[in-house]
Amino acid sequence: MRKQKITISVIGGSSVSSKIEDLAESVGKMIADLGCIMVCGGLGGAMEAAAKGAQKAGGLTIGILPGKDKRDANSYIDIALPTSIGYARNTIVSCSADIIIALPGSFGTNSEICYGLVYSRPVIDLGNWNIEGMIPAKNVAEAEEKIKKIIKKLQHV
Amino acid sequence: MRKQKITISVIGGSSVSSKIEDLAESVGKMIADLGCIMVCGGLGGAMEAAAKGAQKAGGLTIGILPGKDKRDANSYIDIALPTSIGYARNTIVSCSADIIIALPGSFGTNSEICYGLVYSRPVIDLGNWNIEGMIPAKNVAEAEEKIKKIIKKLQHV
Amino acid sequence: MRKQKITISVIGGSSVSSKIEDLAESVGKMIADLGCIMVCGGLGGAMEAAAKGAQKAGGLTIGILPGKDKRDANSYIDIALPTSIGYARNTIVSCSADIIIALPGSFGTNSEICYGLVYSRPVIDLGNWNIEGMIPAKNVAEAEEKIKKIIKKLQHV
Amino acid sequence: MRKQKITISVIGGSSVSSKIEDLAESVGKMIADLGCIMVCGGLGGAMEAAAKGAQKAGGLTIGILPGKDKRDANSYIDIALPTSIGYARNTIVSCSADIIIALPGSFGTNSEICYGLVYSRPVIDLGNWNIEGMIPAKNVAEAEEKIKKIIKKLQHV
Repeated sequence: MRKQKITISVIGGSSVSSKIEDLAESVGKMIADLGCIMVCGGLGGAMEAAAKGAQKAGGLTIGILPGKDKRDANSYIDIALPTSIGYARNTIVSCSADIIIALPGSFGTNSEICYGLVYSRPVIDLGNWNIEGMIPAKNVAEAEEKIKKIIKKLQHV
Repeated sequence: MRKQKITISVIGGSSVSSKIEDLAESVGKMIADLGCIMVCGGLGGAMEAAAKGAQKAGGLTIGILPGKDKRDANSYIDIALPTSIGYARNTIVSCSADIIIALPGSFGTNSEICYGLVYSRPVIDLGNWNIEGMIPAKNVAEAEEKIKKIIKKLQHV
Repeated sequence: MRKQKITISVIGGSSVSSKIEDLAESVGKMIADLGCIMVCGGLGGAMEAAAKGAQKAGGLTIGILPGKDKRDANSYIDIALPTSIGYARNTIVSCSADIIIALPGSFGTNSEICYGLVYSRPVIDLGNWNIEGMIPAKNVAEAEEKIKKIIKKLQHV
Repeated sequence: MRKQKITISVIGGSSVSSKIEDLAESVGKMIADLGCIMVCGGLGGAMEAAAKGAQKAGGLTIGILPGKDKRDANSYIDIALPTSIGYARNTIVSCSADIIIALPGSFGTNSEICYGLVYSRPVIDLGNWNIEGMIPAKNVAEAEEKIKKIIKKLQHV
């Protein structure tokens, strides 16, 4: 019997600028450095960059895929979990996380933010979403500080 | 960039005899010994015994939960993934596996077998289900031999 | 404020013999004659024949589709409800029914039977499934008699 | 063989002011007057008021429920469709609509707007959401004009 692992979902656009890719990679590294599992939607853009950052830092990465084929996953996913439920898998990317980190993105990312709030998950805003209920963070360092505090309070660990 | 991990889902009743718990624990151990990730529905009975067997053998265990609270998971789950979609999460327990091992169970287990076949996953029959399309195995040793052959053919590894 | 309508889901193969199509059409007619709403998965085979039977008898038909496009529905669906969740929509075809009628089919139909039983819906067996928990019926007339008794007991009407 | 019915989903808070209830009731009436089917999440607040408005005007109302019990539906639902998938049913409320009308609400409503846009449904903004991609409308009359134009273009009718 071991303690459960903390899961942190990174949500963001599947096609983003190289600047946001760098941000996502830093976020992935931070999650791995904290000893947490990185969860994401398993595809490209911010998801891929965050998984790359986590893997390079020695972390474990999980991709919750919309389709039924594991080969849809980006190259930095350790554990691909195909769902075959399409974009509705966004609800699970959010629900399965202890903490959610939102990077810039479009409607899909916005749906994940909403589901994070519906399921009462803490949602860190690293994408200027400014949605009521999110936890703002200016940069990765500030996000990390806030995440450390949330982790301390998690009851199932 | 690393190779993706092979996922094996163990499905079976949430309340089973101690004989079936022993079987489930052996199955969990076998999955860990093969270096695969054990996936299950995260709750009690066969799921708990299989997770126990996998953890004791040094394997990693994932529980795809019906509810929204990680504390619903049994004590041997490393990574709990709450879904909040109720029993419909059975479709994901099956879809997310490279290989499914079916132990004795009830309607819920039967739904997971059906979804495994719908999604074209190999489903090993260790529960006398005798459903067309399943791969029969007399015992854990025979199941292991058949699984080794399936793993060799998996294209995404 | 009106009484809620009774919903009866017809489940069966998407490609069946003309004999089973005739059976499905009779079942659809029976549902319309009882004043109930016919629900199905919205595609071909048994679903199409049942919808045809219901429409011809003046009933209303609902198709809960796996994809996102209403044009996937067969020609006898009055209200198409695309879900975009793929085969997982089977869980909803079963859950949304007061009563389920199972015709011959394959794994998909079998998954719907299992979900009907998981959600405690009465499942009439018109397909020789012989699964424990189902309600056997030799023919449409016997099914109709059993359905009339179930309808009398439904509390939400 | 008949033409499929047009479905219009009304989304909005489950607990709203009487002013918004009045707005929702007018929206429901408008949908019925257009000969369309009113779809919603089946519960209270804006959903109930819209269903009331549609029923009073002779329209048919469908409630796609989060739970498994039809008795959870508000009193103005003709056809209750329980899903047992919790808040993830929001994805289906949006996907199953030809057109979505968004009233004021909270995270749940916001998730439905996002899913409407993810699935490329026209989403009329009657709640000052001001989200890019939505179709603004100052009042019910303006919404009705815009909806009439959309209906003319729908290909499956």
